[in-house]
Amino acid sequence: MPRPSHKEKILTSGLRVVHEHGYAASSVRDIIEAAGVPQGSFTNHFASKEAFGLELVNIYYKDIEHFMEETLLNDALPPLKRLRLWAEGAVDSLNQNGHWNGCLLGNFGAEANSEVESIQQRVAEVFREERKNIAYCLRAAVKAGELPAKTKCDELAGFIHAAFEGAILIAKAERSSFPTESFKKTLFSMLLSRKV
Amino acid sequence: MPRPSHKEKILTSGLRVVHEHGYAASSVRDIIEAAGVPQGSFTNHFASKEAFGLELVNIYYKDIEHFMEETLLNDALPPLKRLRLWAEGAVDSLNQNGHWNGCLLGNFGAEANSEVESIQQRVAEVFREERKNIAYCLRAAVKAGELPAKTKCDELAGFIHAAFEGAILIAKAERSSFPTESFKKTLFSMLLSRKV
Repeated sequence: MPRPSHKEKILTSGLRVVHEHGYAASSVRDIIEAAGVPQGSFTNHFASKEAFGLELVNIYYKDIEHFMEETLLNDALPPLKRLRLWAEGAVDSLNQNGHWNGCLLGNFGAEANSEVESIQQRVAEVFREERKNIAYCLRAAVKAGELPAKTKCDELAGFIHAAFEGAILIAKAERSSFPTESFKKTLFSMLLSRKV
Repeated sequence: MPRPSHKEKILTSGLRVVHEHGYAASSVRDIIEAAGVPQGSFTNHFASKEAFGLELVNIYYKDIEHFMEETLLNDALPPLKRLRLWAEGAVDSLNQNGHWNGCLLGNFGAEANSEVESIQQRVAEVFREERKNIAYCLRAAVKAGELPAKTKCDELAGFIHAAFEGAILIAKAERSSFPTESFKKTLFSMLLSRKV
């Protein structure tokens, strides 16, 4: 197996550092030190800290995209089951092992990003993509008779997506899984349980 | 009217700067410059940047607390009407006038706060307080027959609170009111509209 390049080391360690401490609070020096690479490596591989941050968002989103394909977009499974697999899997993959780091996208979204316009725009794009995939799954649920025909899928997707990001954020702030547990339970017991 | 003290100027301008740019991204120099006070003033009035941040959270929360007393906790009004006044008023007071600054509490909560433990703890406390007040209002709605007797008020409050913070956060990232509009509409058309 080839050894990881300096660029790979910076991205892997950098993702951990930024996820744990936030983008603004993580200096290039912090990232370089965590990666254990020479000072000059960062500027060799990234035009700016902003370009580096943008790559982090894209790396982070790759896993999410794959997971959404297996769940929300997976036409082989019943729609509300797909939604449940997504909601529970996504929530459970975050704030793990005593690390209350939240969702990297939500963290970037909450940090003021007018200074890092390209990152802010990419996070917004990813949020819209996630919401679109939730709406796709809800429309399938309506078609399958699992949700009432009058369901406003785009608005409901916006609400579910907001509740998801909010639950992760509040759980992080409180270092408690109560918000994420409430999200999972209420989503299916109240919001999506209504008879057609 | 007495002129505002240096401390008041620092808090007023500092709240604006931190709300707009985030805590980690706002240096003491940025805050001092925005306040138009001498360099030394900051250390005269605040033991640390963390102590200053903590005061910002408390100032910000004072208005929220007052608004919750007028809405969620206002026993003179029908419970679901109180919830609606809170949800719509709180959402509409944020991300205003072309400024997509989100909720200061959510921003602090999403920024990594293990470095600023006292702020993180205070934000968590405030979040729990907000959730408790939403649950109080939901219990009143159950008692008034506006919600089913079997409603799990604490969990539902957690869900609503998460959806609220998440909608504000995503609206900020996208610079769009779609998430907050979806929150307001879905909350009452789907989540709280069920017949007893």
